[in-house]
Amino acid sequence: MNFRIVRFFLSRLLLVEAGLMLLPIIIGLLYREPFSNISSFLAAIFIIVLVGVLLNVKKPDIKTLHTKEGMIIVALTWIGWTCFGALPFVISGEIPFYIDAVFEMASGFTTTGASILREVESLSHSILFWRSFSHLIGGMGVLVFALAIFPTGASETVHLMRAEVPGPKFGKLVSRLKQTAMILYVIYFAMTFITIILLILGGMNVFDAVCHSFGIAGTGGFSTRNASIGYYNSPYIEWVVGIMMMLFGVNFNLFYMILLGQVISVWRDEELRVYLGVIFSATAVIVISNSLNGIYENLGENIRHTFFSVSSIITTTGFLTVDFSRWSLTAITIFAMLMIIGGMAGSTGGGLKVARFTVAGKSMFNEFRLMQNPRRVVVTKFNDKPLTEDQVTRVRNYVLAYIFCAIIIYFLVSLDTHDMQTTVSATLITFNNIGAGFATAGSSAPFTDYSIFSKIVLTFSMIAGRLEIYPIILLFSPSTYLNKS
Amino acid sequence: MNFRIVRFFLSRLLLVEAGLMLLPIIIGLLYREPFSNISSFLAAIFIIVLVGVLLNVKKPDIKTLHTKEGMIIVALTWIGWTCFGALPFVISGEIPFYIDAVFEMASGFTTTGASILREVESLSHSILFWRSFSHLIGGMGVLVFALAIFPTGASETVHLMRAEVPGPKFGKLVSRLKQTAMILYVIYFAMTFITIILLILGGMNVFDAVCHSFGIAGTGGFSTRNASIGYYNSPYIEWVVGIMMMLFGVNFNLFYMILLGQVISVWRDEELRVYLGVIFSATAVIVISNSLNGIYENLGENIRHTFFSVSSIITTTGFLTVDFSRWSLTAITIFAMLMIIGGMAGSTGGGLKVARFTVAGKSMFNEFRLMQNPRRVVVTKFNDKPLTEDQVTRVRNYVLAYIFCAIIIYFLVSLDTHDMQTTVSATLITFNNIGAGFATAGSSAPFTDYSIFSKIVLTFSMIAGRLEIYPIILLFSPSTYLNKS
Repeated sequence: MNFRIVRFFLSRLLLVEAGLMLLPIIIGLLYREPFSNISSFLAAIFIIVLVGVLLNVKKPDIKTLHTKEGMIIVALTWIGWTCFGALPFVISGEIPFYIDAVFEMASGFTTTGASILREVESLSHSILFWRSFSHLIGGMGVLVFALAIFPTGASETVHLMRAEVPGPKFGKLVSRLKQTAMILYVIYFAMTFITIILLILGGMNVFDAVCHSFGIAGTGGFSTRNASIGYYNSPYIEWVVGIMMMLFGVNFNLFYMILLGQVISVWRDEELRVYLGVIFSATAVIVISNSLNGIYENLGENIRHTFFSVSSIITTTGFLTVDFSRWSLTAITIFAMLMIIGGMAGSTGGGLKVARFTVAGKSMFNEFRLMQNPRRVVVTKFNDKPLTEDQVTRVRNYVLAYIFCAIIIYFLVSLDTHDMQTTVSATLITFNNIGAGFATAGSSAPFTDYSIFSKIVLTFSMIAGRLEIYPIILLFSPSTYLNKS
Repeated sequence: MNFRIVRFFLSRLLLVEAGLMLLPIIIGLLYREPFSNISSFLAAIFIIVLVGVLLNVKKPDIKTLHTKEGMIIVALTWIGWTCFGALPFVISGEIPFYIDAVFEMASGFTTTGASILREVESLSHSILFWRSFSHLIGGMGVLVFALAIFPTGASETVHLMRAEVPGPKFGKLVSRLKQTAMILYVIYFAMTFITIILLILGGMNVFDAVCHSFGIAGTGGFSTRNASIGYYNSPYIEWVVGIMMMLFGVNFNLFYMILLGQVISVWRDEELRVYLGVIFSATAVIVISNSLNGIYENLGENIRHTFFSVSSIITTTGFLTVDFSRWSLTAITIFAMLMIIGGMAGSTGGGLKVARFTVAGKSMFNEFRLMQNPRRVVVTKFNDKPLTEDQVTRVRNYVLAYIFCAIIIYFLVSLDTHDMQTTVSATLITFNNIGAGFATAGSSAPFTDYSIFSKIVLTFSMIAGRLEIYPIILLFSPSTYLNKS
C-alpha cells in the first residue's frame, strides 16, 4: 500500500466536496434563509478544508495507481464525503443526531434515497438542495465527477475508473480517458436539464423540478415532498418521471453511440433488450395481478402506476406515486427481483446490473446444456461475442459475493427487527441503493426507528452496494495493509 | 435417448415398490386392521405390477447407460414411485384427495416430512408405517436401494449412482460398485437398528420407535404423533433423536472409513469440521438469543431444545420438540441458513450440502484475495487437495441453479399466498426436503390449505430438491428428446 498517494487523492477529493457545498449556500442566499443555515455549510467547509490540507502535507513521489490503491481511495472517499457531508445537517440542527445525518448523507451519495426523516417539507431549501444534489454527484460516481473537473494526468485515472464506473465492462465500450468522462458527463447534464424543463412544463415549481431531476438523474429517491411524486397527482408528471427514470437506467455508452450515429448497434445491444424486456414483462404481470386483485378499476391508472413503480424500482431510483407494498405478494416478489437485477451496467442505477444477471443466467443454462451432451462445446456469449472463461467466472463470483453480503446485512439487521418482510425490504433497499421498498409499514417507511447499530449496518450496506462490494471488503481486510506488494 | 432402456429400468424399479408394499400389509395383519385397509395395498400392488409388466414388453438390446438416460430414469422413478405409492392412501380413504396423497407420498420418498394432514394419530398403523417407511427408502435413494437388492451387472450402475447419491463427490471416496452400495446400506440399517433400540430404551413403544427411526435415518420428519417428538416430553428421547439426526447428516463414507480404521482421516475431514462447526455455532448463537429474549428460564432446557432444532433443521429432518417459529427473527434467519446449507454430501440429508457451501465460499474468498494481488496464483482447496477449475465451476453453477429454482418456486407459490415469511418457509421446507419451518402459523403448520396448484408446485419442489435439480430439468427440456446423441 502506497499510503501517500491515498492521502493525496483523498485530500483533493475532500476539497472538491467543500467546493460543491458552495452551491447550497447560494440556494440559501437566494431563498433568504437565516444566517444560521448558511453558516452550517460554511462551518462544514472550514472543517473539510482543514482536514484536506492536513492530509496532504507531504506530496507523493510516484503517481501511478494500482487497482488496490484505487479501490481504497474510492472506498475512503465515499466514507469521507458521507461523514463530512453530514455536518451541515447536524450543525443547522435540521437532523440533530449525527448517525441519522450520516445515514441520510450516505443515502444521498449512494443515490439510495432511503430517509430517516418522517417529514421533509419543513426542511430549509438549502438543506433540501444539498440532499438532492448529493444524488446528482453520486450518480455518475464521485470520482468520475472529480476526474471531469479536476486537472490530473490520464495515467492515474485508469485504475480509479475501474473501481468507480458501475457494472461489468464487456466489449469495446470506451477508452477510459478524461475526454470520455467529460463526454459522459455532458450527456448526463444535458439529460438532467431536459428533465428539469419537462417537469417545469408540467407545472412543478422550479426548485422541486431541479431537486427531483437530480434524483432521477442519479437514480436516487429523495423528494422535496412527503408523498414523493404522488404529491403532484399529475399523470403528465408521472409519465415524464417514469420514462426519464427508465432512460437513466440505460448504459450511458449507448447514448454516446447514438450521438456517434451507431443506432443499429444500440438497437442490437443485448443488455438493452433484456432491460426493456424485463421492464415490460414485469409491468404486464403486475398490471394483471392488480386487475385480478381489484386494486385499480381504471386500466390506464393501473398501467401508469405500475409502469412508474417498475421503472422506479429496476432503475433503483425509489420515487413513489402509490404504496405498492399493499399489492399482492406476487407483485412484491417481482419488485424484489427487479431490485436485485437493477439498472444496466454503465448507468447510474444500482443492483446486480442487467449485464451480470444475463451472463450469470446464460452460463447456468449452458451448464444444463452441457449436461445433456457432455461432448458439445458450449461458450457463453454476450452481444454475440464469446466471453472468456475468466470473464464468466468473474461474474459468477460477483453474484456469489453479492448474495453473501446481502445475507450478512439481512442477518445483522434481523438482530433488532421482528418482521421478515420488513427486514428483507430494508436489506434490498439499501444494498441495491433503491430507497423505496415493501416494509409492512409501507413502501416509503422511513428508517427513523431503527437502532443505531442497524443504521450503521445499513449505511455500510448502501456504500458497499454502490461501490460494488469489493472496495469495502478490501478496506476491511487486514491483508490489504500487511502485504507489501 | 434410448427409450427402451428407460422403460426397462422403470419397470423393474416399479416392481421393487410393489414388493416393498408387502411390509405395510404385514403390519396391517399384525395390528388386525380391517380388510379394507389391507386390500388398499393389494389393489395398489396389482396396479403397479400391471403397469410394470406393460412397460417392459420389449427388452432393450444395449444395456449401457449414459448420464442422460440415468438421470431421466431417476427422475421418472421418483415421480412414478410417488404417483403409485400414493394409491393406498386414496383407496383406503385415509387421504381421500389424490393430489394430497401425492404430496404426502412425495414428502415421504424425498424425506421431506411436510404433511397435508392436520391430524395423524387417527391414521391406521399400516398407513402410518408406509408413510414412515418411505423415508427409509427415500433416505439412501430409491436407486441405491434398488441396486443393493437387485441382480444387475455393475456396468449400468455407474451412471445411475452418479445421478442418485446425493452431493458433490471430491476426492477418492469409494469406487462405485455394487459392493459399496451394499456396505453403505448395511451401515445405514445398523444405525437405524441402534436408533430403534435406543428409543425403545427411552420408553417409546415399538411401533413409534420404528417409525421415528425410519424418519431419523432418512432425515425425513413424518411422526406418528401430532406433536412430533415433543409428544414424549422426555429429555432422554430428545437427546437421542437430536444426536442420531446429527449422525445421519454425516457423509456415510466417513463411517465406512471408521470401520476401516482410518479414524485420523475422518477427524481431518474438512466437510465434517465445517458441519460440526456450523451446528455448534448456530446452537450457541440461538441459545444466547433465546436467553436474551427470555424464551427459556432454564439453560439446560434452552440448550436441549435449541440443539434438537438445529440438528433437525441442518440435517433437513424436521422433527420438532417446540415451535421455533416463535423465536426471534435472528433465530429464524439462522434456521433459514441451516436449511440452505443442509447435510453433508453423501449423507441422507438434503439442502445445498456442506461441501458445496464450503467450496463456493472458499472460491469466493479466493476471488477477493486475487483482487488484492492479481499476480498471486490462487487455488481453491478442499480437504487439502487442490480442486480443478472445472470442479469449482460445477459447484458455482449448481449454487446458481439452486438459487434460480428456489426463486421460481417461491414465485409460483407467492401466486396464492399472502405472507412472505410463510412463503419463504414453504419454499425452503420443500426444496431442501426439511418438513418443518417458520410459517407464521407455526413450525409444524400443515400444507392442508394450499391450493391444488401450489401443492403440485411444492411436490415438484420436493422432488427437484431431492434429486439435486438437474434430473428434473433434463426431464422437462425438449432438447433431451430431440437430440439423437
